[in-house]
Amino acid sequence: MSAQSNSWRVNFASDNVGGAAPEIVAALAEAADGFAMPYGNDDLTEKFRALAAETFETELAAYPVATGTAANSIALATLAPPYGVIYCHEGAHIEEDECAAPEFYIGGGKLTLLGGADGKFSAGDLKAKLGDPSAAAAVHHAQPAAVSISQLTEKGTAYTLEEIRAIADVAHAHGLRLHMDGARFANAVNALGCSPAEASWKSGVDVLSFGATKNGAFAAEAVIFFDPALAKDIEFRRKRGGHLFSKMRFLSAQLCAYLENENWLRYGANANGAAKALADGLRNVDGVELLHPVDGNEIFARISASVHQALRAAGCQYYAFGEAPDGSVGIRLVTAFNTGDAETGHFLEAARAGAKGAAA
Amino acid sequence: MSAQSNSWRVNFASDNVGGAAPEIVAALAEAADGFAMPYGNDDLTEKFRALAAETFETELAAYPVATGTAANSIALATLAPPYGVIYCHEGAHIEEDECAAPEFYIGGGKLTLLGGADGKFSAGDLKAKLGDPSAAAAVHHAQPAAVSISQLTEKGTAYTLEEIRAIADVAHAHGLRLHMDGARFANAVNALGCSPAEASWKSGVDVLSFGATKNGAFAAEAVIFFDPALAKDIEFRRKRGGHLFSKMRFLSAQLCAYLENENWLRYGANANGAAKALADGLRNVDGVELLHPVDGNEIFARISASVHQALRAAGCQYYAFGEAPDGSVGIRLVTAFNTGDAETGHFLEAARAGAKGAAA
Amino acid sequence: MSAQSNSWRVNFASDNVGGAAPEIVAALAEAADGFAMPYGNDDLTEKFRALAAETFETELAAYPVATGTAANSIALATLAPPYGVIYCHEGAHIEEDECAAPEFYIGGGKLTLLGGADGKFSAGDLKAKLGDPSAAAAVHHAQPAAVSISQLTEKGTAYTLEEIRAIADVAHAHGLRLHMDGARFANAVNALGCSPAEASWKSGVDVLSFGATKNGAFAAEAVIFFDPALAKDIEFRRKRGGHLFSKMRFLSAQLCAYLENENWLRYGANANGAAKALADGLRNVDGVELLHPVDGNEIFARISASVHQALRAAGCQYYAFGEAPDGSVGIRLVTAFNTGDAETGHFLEAARAGAKGAAA
Amino acid sequence: MSAQSNSWRVNFASDNVGGAAPEIVAALAEAADGFAMPYGNDDLTEKFRALAAETFETELAAYPVATGTAANSIALATLAPPYGVIYCHEGAHIEEDECAAPEFYIGGGKLTLLGGADGKFSAGDLKAKLGDPSAAAAVHHAQPAAVSISQLTEKGTAYTLEEIRAIADVAHAHGLRLHMDGARFANAVNALGCSPAEASWKSGVDVLSFGATKNGAFAAEAVIFFDPALAKDIEFRRKRGGHLFSKMRFLSAQLCAYLENENWLRYGANANGAAKALADGLRNVDGVELLHPVDGNEIFARISASVHQALRAAGCQYYAFGEAPDGSVGIRLVTAFNTGDAETGHFLEAARAGAKGAAA
Repeated sequence: MSAQSNSWRVNFASDNVGGAAPEIVAALAEAADGFAMPYGNDDLTEKFRALAAETFETELAAYPVATGTAANSIALATLAPPYGVIYCHEGAHIEEDECAAPEFYIGGGKLTLLGGADGKFSAGDLKAKLGDPSAAAAVHHAQPAAVSISQLTEKGTAYTLEEIRAIADVAHAHGLRLHMDGARFANAVNALGCSPAEASWKSGVDVLSFGATKNGAFAAEAVIFFDPALAKDIEFRRKRGGHLFSKMRFLSAQLCAYLENENWLRYGANANGAAKALADGLRNVDGVELLHPVDGNEIFARISASVHQALRAAGCQYYAFGEAPDGSVGIRLVTAFNTGDAETGHFLEAARAGAKGAAA
Repeated sequence: MSAQSNSWRVNFASDNVGGAAPEIVAALAEAADGFAMPYGNDDLTEKFRALAAETFETELAAYPVATGTAANSIALATLAPPYGVIYCHEGAHIEEDECAAPEFYIGGGKLTLLGGADGKFSAGDLKAKLGDPSAAAAVHHAQPAAVSISQLTEKGTAYTLEEIRAIADVAHAHGLRLHMDGARFANAVNALGCSPAEASWKSGVDVLSFGATKNGAFAAEAVIFFDPALAKDIEFRRKRGGHLFSKMRFLSAQLCAYLENENWLRYGANANGAAKALADGLRNVDGVELLHPVDGNEIFARISASVHQALRAAGCQYYAFGEAPDGSVGIRLVTAFNTGDAETGHFLEAARAGAKGAAA
Repeated sequence: MSAQSNSWRVNFASDNVGGAAPEIVAALAEAADGFAMPYGNDDLTEKFRALAAETFETELAAYPVATGTAANSIALATLAPPYGVIYCHEGAHIEEDECAAPEFYIGGGKLTLLGGADGKFSAGDLKAKLGDPSAAAAVHHAQPAAVSISQLTEKGTAYTLEEIRAIADVAHAHGLRLHMDGARFANAVNALGCSPAEASWKSGVDVLSFGATKNGAFAAEAVIFFDPALAKDIEFRRKRGGHLFSKMRFLSAQLCAYLENENWLRYGANANGAAKALADGLRNVDGVELLHPVDGNEIFARISASVHQALRAAGCQYYAFGEAPDGSVGIRLVTAFNTGDAETGHFLEAARAGAKGAAA
Repeated sequence: MSAQSNSWRVNFASDNVGGAAPEIVAALAEAADGFAMPYGNDDLTEKFRALAAETFETELAAYPVATGTAANSIALATLAPPYGVIYCHEGAHIEEDECAAPEFYIGGGKLTLLGGADGKFSAGDLKAKLGDPSAAAAVHHAQPAAVSISQLTEKGTAYTLEEIRAIADVAHAHGLRLHMDGARFANAVNALGCSPAEASWKSGVDVLSFGATKNGAFAAEAVIFFDPALAKDIEFRRKRGGHLFSKMRFLSAQLCAYLENENWLRYGANANGAAKALADGLRNVDGVELLHPVDGNEIFARISASVHQALRAAGCQYYAFGEAPDGSVGIRLVTAFNTGDAETGHFLEAARAGAKGAAA
């Protein structure tokens, strides 16, 4: 990450560089008054559970935590024995960006990696990796325990409902549960144009890390089990990870405001719309090549040195990587719940100017 | 815990049943605007570090987390190998109330327990337990790694500076570091009438879990190393525990508002003052016996059945335990940063009425 | 341990200082010929399982390992979640002498300690510690998972069948399993004058660490589940601990020779007989005081400085501790499967001479 | 593994199906007499250390254990923090065949896999995977800790001294230590025609899992540190894994007999010679294709259905996998310290007969 300063006109470095959405700010401030019993025995947490069940149109068990790494790791630990294997994409956040937190929470298990373009692996690749479901477990091997997919993926793409269902079918045929890392679940639901239920349990997802932090919350996620029986010991695992908040109502207050009035879907729609505007604009800029489909709020592109320089000069912040000999770089742009037309416009204008300068 | 309802006139169940202090609410709302780089590379986190150094009058390394269990467990894990032993009081929070989180973070270590009245163990008991510092390490035993004291203790008492120093000296003579669980550090500093530096590193504390949640924050603590070299790998350990917040500025915003203008000391003073008022009043109520010195914001007492009934009837919430055949119960009262005279007055009045009713 | 040299006339330092019994040496040498499939798929391992079932007069699941620490730790790990609590005596081998191996295998759990004279805790103490079996599990606490007793205890005493049954009843009433660390199980069975079945499952023991190493084997123990369903995942846990021997027949060969012809009971009887002879003799020596009942093959005593000097001068090796100002020391004597009259005689003669010298 | 019965005329299933070598049997029987202090404080363990230093022509620290999985896992745990990464081949024993034991002992770390033909990865691939050694450690990622190579590899090939040196140089340039899984180290030394020192520390190996079990021992391995300072806490890690043998002299006795008179090299030479005879013979059999170079005592081949049937009919045991539609199968043959001409001759004769039958 080459970005250090905090003063930029436009900041597409990540969806965690933005602040918090006004509805969530207001809800937290309101919750700050008065008494409430601790550790989740409060009205807001009860309300959050009801809102989650309503949102997903099913009975479920939902547990607030504060970070995505906590949500993923605790979720996976409930699904795997300490000698268990989680199957995931080689670029998955749980593999690349969580400092072995899943292995820590599982107690020493293993992530087994699958390849695949655009951040996705296929049901066929999973099936090939898992082999014959009727084969006896060999004591020499770590044991298959769960499958995890990211939605959006780390490349900003969305698995289609058919792709999820196919992966779920393979997982279930092997007796494995399907976990979804939904740090950008709102963006995915918007991208797919389906219901939250269709994007999750109706397509075979058993456990969802339901993210809110990247989409307008201060710090709030939830582990959601669509089969409440799976949640058996999550409360102990959350507590021993230090993730049981004494004032849990302040996580729940965020999550309630997030779900109420479908605010979360509106935030996601804004982020996706901004990304689409950026992508549409960039396709017509010389020296810019999009690297993956833009399904949600993330854009991966390769841009020429002159475009890069023009953007930086215009105060545009983003993550850059893989500088080539000709000075071109790969970039990742992430839009947010509150990205406005002024920002996307400023960015595109600077990019176009950079392209023009190169041509001159 | 017999308390379930959330509607009470007075709630002394814990210092986590109260809300958040106005300065902290305002700071968080203000921080919600604009961009900031994630994971602690932001201005507020830098400001927090500077404020902490100023508050403690020394160079230090400070790491925000969201819960006390996280602070304690991560702190201890940096001090102990996976076969390490932490020495603590048998009633310590890390032993009784963290679902083996320290053992989890340490990777399988052990807490070895010391007794002692009023929630404190003595330097002498520690020395006796540790034995001869020149003895060779025997491979059969888990290895002494650190000593941990709670300040306030779990009985609401405060170790004196002399007691801390004596324990630190024993620990250091055995090559062990001294950790302080300062979930109620503000109350302890107020109780001791000393500086934060005197209450910690000047008395030999090496690592402090500096609590804010119980004293007016939403959810914010910090692990503070007075010897920054000890912090060596805490960043990896915090991350793999899922405790590295992407929007860390929202933890730091709380901690900045907490430290600024000595707000935290003022909150602690209010809580302690309310507890003193309660204790002073209760000493004169028939059927009430205080069980431990009231140094900070916690009161442990045994009360008669009639006082208990009168308090419950008057809408007073608190933790009760150990009902005796005569109907008397042990109770714990915890006051908070915002406990007011109306509440302590209402409570005392109800207690007195209960005592009178019994006498009638 | 003050003993360093390996050349003593008599060595009562431990039951692991002796060699291996002739029947076991012969069996291992015989097994060294020819082919056998690895990892327990061999005839000797099958034979061991049959012999174990016959010895204990019940269906069971038995798993060879090489050390007592492995047997205990793997057994306990099958009974406890990673946040589980094992209840044991404060002097138990699993607490004092295994370098936190149980906590390692459990994945971060906790041993909760009970006191009690002569190395035993009582059913009553256990019941008091466990509290009300109908109480709901509190998420803040590590969760009760199993109870473990040592038989012989670390003080050389044997729990009576009634004591075991009473402890088992308390454990089972709380939904906990009872583990027995039977490193000296042969000595205990001899002491109790009962059958192996009576000493274990008929008295409520669920899982037994069945020791052979201390009683004539090279290195062989077995984890025995009297309810085979409990063994569910032990094979994975044994493997990931590095305790699945590829040439497992060499563990099984030892265990077969151990069980055949009741050799193990004969070895245990010899050791116990030698200890009884020593104890009977020592009771009549001035300056010697026995510290615990001598139920099996271990003697704890306090001896005067002159007796100690005479014994050392006569080439007698044993573990000494707790030297008092008058020069008296505590000692532990452990006899073995092959301790002979010459050794016990030599030891007693030296002790008597030391006592006489002091009196002169 | 399709093999179940234990009665075959020829058994090439693994080098752990054979028995123990006569020198080792004799040494163990001899050690079974007399007293010795436990836990490695005995003459045989001291002698083993001296023999190891002499064999490797350098000061070293050597620790006996009983299994290869224990040796590898404990060795790697001394080199890696709990969030550490071990780089190894995707087919490595530590990845494929140890049920996540390395992750367990490390405390939750990660194995990162490298591809490469014939069971080897290259220094170049490692360098590419590790990236820029000057890059700052990012807290989001598990941290590079060590590199591990298998010698022989899992495909029976041997890294050349140059290949080892190149990998060591890359590892060391990144501050990582090089571990060698030497379960078949004797076969590798024979294959390379070099000294044990050249095959290990002189080529940059820092820690060696020195195997004896597969090459004639009952159950004995050693973790050898060529930089004794690296061994810092291995004794605690070995103990808490349950791998500190009380009667350690019985491991040491095996290792002494193994090293004395270069017995181990003679055993390895016999196994390699038998494999070479088999490979040479098989190259001329129709329907047999060797899949990898035969550097040591392992042969991987694809054989026709008729050859397979003829071998099985002739009582030849081996591991078979990957049956193709035409009935051909992949096979692995492993020869041992005691494989004789009669066995290789019988096998080749049967193979030739099978090929002839197919042609008829």
